[in-house]
Amino acid sequence: MKKAKKILNDPVYGFVSIPDGLIFELIEHPYYQRLRRIKQLSLTHYVYPGALHTRFHHAIGAFHLMTQAIEILRSKGTDITDEEAEAVSIAILLHDIGHGPFSHTLENTLIQVHHEDLSLAFMEKINQDLDGKLELAIQIFKDEHPKKFLYQLVSGQLDMDRMDYLNRDSFFTGVHEGVIGYHRIIKMLAVSNDELVVEEKGIYSIEKFLVARRLMYWQVYLHKAVLSAERMLVLALLRAKALCRMGKNPKCPSRHLEYFLLNGHLLDANQPISDEMLEHFAHLDDFDIISALKTWMDEEDEVLRFISKGLINRRLFKLELSPKPFDRHYVENIRQKIEKWGQFSAADLPFLITEGKESNNAYSTSKDEIKIKFKSGEVMPMSEVVDHGIQFQLVTKYYLGYPKELVSL
Amino acid sequence: MKKAKKILNDPVYGFVSIPDGLIFELIEHPYYQRLRRIKQLSLTHYVYPGALHTRFHHAIGAFHLMTQAIEILRSKGTDITDEEAEAVSIAILLHDIGHGPFSHTLENTLIQVHHEDLSLAFMEKINQDLDGKLELAIQIFKDEHPKKFLYQLVSGQLDMDRMDYLNRDSFFTGVHEGVIGYHRIIKMLAVSNDELVVEEKGIYSIEKFLVARRLMYWQVYLHKAVLSAERMLVLALLRAKALCRMGKNPKCPSRHLEYFLLNGHLLDANQPISDEMLEHFAHLDDFDIISALKTWMDEEDEVLRFISKGLINRRLFKLELSPKPFDRHYVENIRQKIEKWGQFSAADLPFLITEGKESNNAYSTSKDEIKIKFKSGEVMPMSEVVDHGIQFQLVTKYYLGYPKELVSL
Amino acid sequence: MKKAKKILNDPVYGFVSIPDGLIFELIEHPYYQRLRRIKQLSLTHYVYPGALHTRFHHAIGAFHLMTQAIEILRSKGTDITDEEAEAVSIAILLHDIGHGPFSHTLENTLIQVHHEDLSLAFMEKINQDLDGKLELAIQIFKDEHPKKFLYQLVSGQLDMDRMDYLNRDSFFTGVHEGVIGYHRIIKMLAVSNDELVVEEKGIYSIEKFLVARRLMYWQVYLHKAVLSAERMLVLALLRAKALCRMGKNPKCPSRHLEYFLLNGHLLDANQPISDEMLEHFAHLDDFDIISALKTWMDEEDEVLRFISKGLINRRLFKLELSPKPFDRHYVENIRQKIEKWGQFSAADLPFLITEGKESNNAYSTSKDEIKIKFKSGEVMPMSEVVDHGIQFQLVTKYYLGYPKELVSL
Amino acid sequence: MKKAKKILNDPVYGFVSIPDGLIFELIEHPYYQRLRRIKQLSLTHYVYPGALHTRFHHAIGAFHLMTQAIEILRSKGTDITDEEAEAVSIAILLHDIGHGPFSHTLENTLIQVHHEDLSLAFMEKINQDLDGKLELAIQIFKDEHPKKFLYQLVSGQLDMDRMDYLNRDSFFTGVHEGVIGYHRIIKMLAVSNDELVVEEKGIYSIEKFLVARRLMYWQVYLHKAVLSAERMLVLALLRAKALCRMGKNPKCPSRHLEYFLLNGHLLDANQPISDEMLEHFAHLDDFDIISALKTWMDEEDEVLRFISKGLINRRLFKLELSPKPFDRHYVENIRQKIEKWGQFSAADLPFLITEGKESNNAYSTSKDEIKIKFKSGEVMPMSEVVDHGIQFQLVTKYYLGYPKELVSL
Repeated sequence: MKKAKKILNDPVYGFVSIPDGLIFELIEHPYYQRLRRIKQLSLTHYVYPGALHTRFHHAIGAFHLMTQAIEILRSKGTDITDEEAEAVSIAILLHDIGHGPFSHTLENTLIQVHHEDLSLAFMEKINQDLDGKLELAIQIFKDEHPKKFLYQLVSGQLDMDRMDYLNRDSFFTGVHEGVIGYHRIIKMLAVSNDELVVEEKGIYSIEKFLVARRLMYWQVYLHKAVLSAERMLVLALLRAKALCRMGKNPKCPSRHLEYFLLNGHLLDANQPISDEMLEHFAHLDDFDIISALKTWMDEEDEVLRFISKGLINRRLFKLELSPKPFDRHYVENIRQKIEKWGQFSAADLPFLITEGKESNNAYSTSKDEIKIKFKSGEVMPMSEVVDHGIQFQLVTKYYLGYPKELVSL
Repeated sequence: MKKAKKILNDPVYGFVSIPDGLIFELIEHPYYQRLRRIKQLSLTHYVYPGALHTRFHHAIGAFHLMTQAIEILRSKGTDITDEEAEAVSIAILLHDIGHGPFSHTLENTLIQVHHEDLSLAFMEKINQDLDGKLELAIQIFKDEHPKKFLYQLVSGQLDMDRMDYLNRDSFFTGVHEGVIGYHRIIKMLAVSNDELVVEEKGIYSIEKFLVARRLMYWQVYLHKAVLSAERMLVLALLRAKALCRMGKNPKCPSRHLEYFLLNGHLLDANQPISDEMLEHFAHLDDFDIISALKTWMDEEDEVLRFISKGLINRRLFKLELSPKPFDRHYVENIRQKIEKWGQFSAADLPFLITEGKESNNAYSTSKDEIKIKFKSGEVMPMSEVVDHGIQFQLVTKYYLGYPKELVSL
Repeated sequence: MKKAKKILNDPVYGFVSIPDGLIFELIEHPYYQRLRRIKQLSLTHYVYPGALHTRFHHAIGAFHLMTQAIEILRSKGTDITDEEAEAVSIAILLHDIGHGPFSHTLENTLIQVHHEDLSLAFMEKINQDLDGKLELAIQIFKDEHPKKFLYQLVSGQLDMDRMDYLNRDSFFTGVHEGVIGYHRIIKMLAVSNDELVVEEKGIYSIEKFLVARRLMYWQVYLHKAVLSAERMLVLALLRAKALCRMGKNPKCPSRHLEYFLLNGHLLDANQPISDEMLEHFAHLDDFDIISALKTWMDEEDEVLRFISKGLINRRLFKLELSPKPFDRHYVENIRQKIEKWGQFSAADLPFLITEGKESNNAYSTSKDEIKIKFKSGEVMPMSEVVDHGIQFQLVTKYYLGYPKELVSL
Repeated sequence: MKKAKKILNDPVYGFVSIPDGLIFELIEHPYYQRLRRIKQLSLTHYVYPGALHTRFHHAIGAFHLMTQAIEILRSKGTDITDEEAEAVSIAILLHDIGHGPFSHTLENTLIQVHHEDLSLAFMEKINQDLDGKLELAIQIFKDEHPKKFLYQLVSGQLDMDRMDYLNRDSFFTGVHEGVIGYHRIIKMLAVSNDELVVEEKGIYSIEKFLVARRLMYWQVYLHKAVLSAERMLVLALLRAKALCRMGKNPKCPSRHLEYFLLNGHLLDANQPISDEMLEHFAHLDDFDIISALKTWMDEEDEVLRFISKGLINRRLFKLELSPKPFDRHYVENIRQKIEKWGQFSAADLPFLITEGKESNNAYSTSKDEIKIKFKSGEVMPMSEVVDHGIQFQLVTKYYLGYPKELVSL
């Protein structure tokens, strides 16, 4: 039992120990502290008011589970050196450090870079500052380490990321049905041929984990009102960028956010991440966005003002869901209604109607499958286990959102 | 809010209110108090030491959930008279009153009558004593009431019995993965055409409920060591009855148990339930069986002594599980081993080897299906809902148990 | 069971029902929605990372408990009309609507008005808009209603405010020891002579409640690092106001916050609340403050920059606690150290050292005492109950905070 | 992390690991398995139906906490050898092995020996069988080991016994207010001068622990109806012994219980524990007593039949509580009522009226005090800590119980 530098109270797990040294130093780093200001679930708290937890808390939780997973695997004879243990812990701790404001919601809206690439950029920046202390962690994070299971613990079907977020999200939303038997699943992990596998006895826990995840998708992450709020947020930012392109820059209380609004043409072009970009990104969080929305409640542009007021005062777009694409006539009819409404012009329509689809498959056999290890030592993909008794299908839902004022017009 | 006669602390639900009047009177009845001495999960506590909860507690829990279900259904406009509400509450309260010692384990071992028929017999007996006050409850229990949903609340795919036992069993075993969102499921219940249905939004909770139930089957109810202990218990009783048939009556500390051991030939013949039988059955509980086993630790018959000692000191049979029937040669080999062991004769073998199979289908579309009600009012069997995305298969496991001493022979 | 307009998932209580009508309308009001952006526990999350819950959530929780309390009291025969029930529910729902950014921390720093007076001002404003619909709620809130127990449910030793915040704060901090038996306490409430009393059997729950509250004070609310962060926040705002007074206005991203910084001389003078003030206050929340701090990380003034950076990057002042006042020589020594440090001038010292004291008495007999009602009907102040067996004393702690850089100088 | 032989699901703590070797062997021993048949809280389940947990489960829980305490103390530098760790674990595992049926209730009724002396006798018996492997455990159990803190972990103000039973009892009764912060308390334990102490920061948790214990005493352990049932149980056994003394031996289904009923004159005489006694005691459990009561429902003696029926059918004596001794006239009046009732003779009165008193002091300064260790290293008894702010007093309650039939006479 290594002496803990700090013990945190986590309502999800109880006491969480942070060891002294590099791990503690990384948590203290301003890059990591920024995650305190980025909510894990974006605007989900508009429906589930307890869901205010942050990426900061999530990553520490995932780190905590990693510590347990390492201990379990070692107790089963898997060789993990102290350096590897620290490196894989760092990889999970920093896996989300590249998330921007409102996590996934604004991904690709402010900058055309995937958050994992930004995480990597931040890790490399810190690695430079710390004379290469993160080398091994980066190797694992990029799946370049020969012990593939280390990467799978960070990013895979049963990684510590998912294990924590399902737990944490169900805890803070109060959707207890999302709770998973993480404790048991981790106890059932093993390594076979350098790959992560699950012992036979854990198969029912895995099923429950998959079903819980599916439930969280449709009941929480893709809840109608959550989707509505998040789509409105995207529209607000897109509108602000559009105004900038037209030279009608809206007032922006944060110079870092302003950078992204003004340089949209560059940032969307999928260029390499520059130091300048990264520096600004390192100062961006939920507070910049919400403060901008609050400022935009007084903005001259009617569309931006309308959406910003709606978001701040929680007057959300009406959002419809359908198992098949919306009929074009139906959508056209809504467009016409908005025009007739008289508040906005035809040119504003792309910022007042939101359409798209979301899909979720609780378990896919096409990707890297979960492997089950039998007492005999045999390893088998989960979909081939005879008495598995449960099968999943891909579910897709189409959405269509528009100002709820239209309903009564 | 009707004034409660009594408020019970239930670790599962918090406070449970027992209303004054008939319900309270029934709980005070010796027939109902007997359930305090019948464990819900038989010998499961040999594996999950917390699983000592009783049929008494379970039935009160199911009653508690029934109270909530009635309130919800009424708030949605379903007409349930006060008489019906009380009757369906009584039906669920007494649904297990016919369970004998060790619940399902010894069903058909002591007497060839299903516990539900015994429950009915007890209800009719009480009904006589109370001048017909249970008439309506009995009608519902027998599914003879025109409002079919009342029966479905007592016995159906989503009845309050299952709702409580899954919760309670997962709580007391500590297998948290068995926890179900009963609160949400009950909130989603509705009635359509006098049938119980679930509102569309509840579909993910139903899925989780089915998966949780499946998990509880294989992880708890049919756990190897549980099955072993329960099969041993059956063997002990069968042996005692066999000895009685041979005139070698073993000592029996309870005259009520003795009645069932001595009259095996009659009771197995599937006769109608006599008053005498019922009277003796009303005095039978786990304590009679355990005391008999303790007495039989000194019994002359070697087989009965061996099994009784094994059960009391928790020296259980080795039990093997297999997805397909056991090879006859394999079984024959075990028989020979026992004979060679020299402790027992060939004639004892049927009491020293136990074979059989157990099946479970998380959800079957052949029986009465769960019905989903859409916002449009349409009602559809769950298996036909397009975006349901999950399918279950029947799983069967074969078991073979024998004295663990054989392993090292 | 009145049909609910909305059902919220509360991780603390499960499902919370919001009835249709006025209550729902008030929750939708922008004044109330603002509470979504004001954390219940200010910067406590710097120590307990889960403590991100808001005044919005707290007030809905307190409303939920009020619904239960009304139901219990009515079931015991206390006469509460439907109008009174709604009014007392509104009073608790809006009791914190006057809280400003960071709740208690900045009370008296931005404006010299107690949050309860601001709550009243907001309630009166809404009352005007709604043609007097809040009249009765306001009467209760001001303790001008003859049924004094209604006021006591909103504000008293056992009010629903405390009942919720202790529960909620202990839930989200993960300090499970703060959990109270609110369910049982509420069940034990009764009314005697128009005053709220507790039935005899509830006395042990009350004790636990008082001890839990005491524990929360010292372990959470007045935790060293929490106190440090909150004192730094006060210093930052005081510095910003001081700079404004000197005409060196720091950049301020929010025009509403700016109003309070620039008009400090007026607002501190304890004038009546003007419409202008209220209007600006209605737009102020945690986001304005955090965004200002982020902006001030680039501020010219070194003191403001230093504190702002410290707060954003969580580099907190060292804070010492002592049961007696700090020795003047000791404090003088620290002042000199800061001067010698060379970063700041002597004039800056008041913004770099923070001193004060905090007191807490788990239960005081000098204020309105908790009354115990015996089965005989007799009512007695808790301190006079013979077998009470527990006594509390006032505890005071002195604190002294300063830049942690000094420690190694 | 030593490889676990077995992992148990404990609803209270989650997974509990049982190490391979001696500990596992002891748990498998029939002496220890007997504890499966002794309920921790005797007849408390007559009021709190979930309280069916056993001494078996409690002792394993206490063992689990001991494992944690050892790990914590070692991490703080306290020297505990592997042998000592195992020995202190065995001492806590076996500390209750001498408990008889219904734990404390029948202590001194069946045999005049304290359960701790019987535990010691069993430990010495096992020690003989295992060639002295329990020597060190026995030394600790008898407080003869120089490292006094080892004994204090087994038996002291903050021992693992209390830590577990408070937790477990509050869990299974559903009296959540009895829940203690055992996790935090154990984390705060330290050793100073070979004595167990608590670090300063743990003082509020200790307070809560003391208040929780006090609450459990009056709300659960000494609940009126629990006390009534337990007193009736004592009366039944005393009556049975009295009948034996008069040569009117009642039927007894268990030869082991019979031994204690027939040899009352010897066993009450406080003689040394003979092998014969111990052997019979090792077969005695709750089942013998309940089976006897069930048999005695048909007993000739009216008093024994009356009490036995009352206990089995839960028709309990009326029990009154008072802060002062009952008035002699009041008691005399009850005696006369029983006589007038006509069911029983004057000679039966001692078995139909039960009188006595129960006391509890949440914290006493006269016994071995809890020691607080300050950061400075100083150690102080808790009662002398200045800002402790809480004081306890001894509370005594007198009880008087009699057949409830009298009330309506």
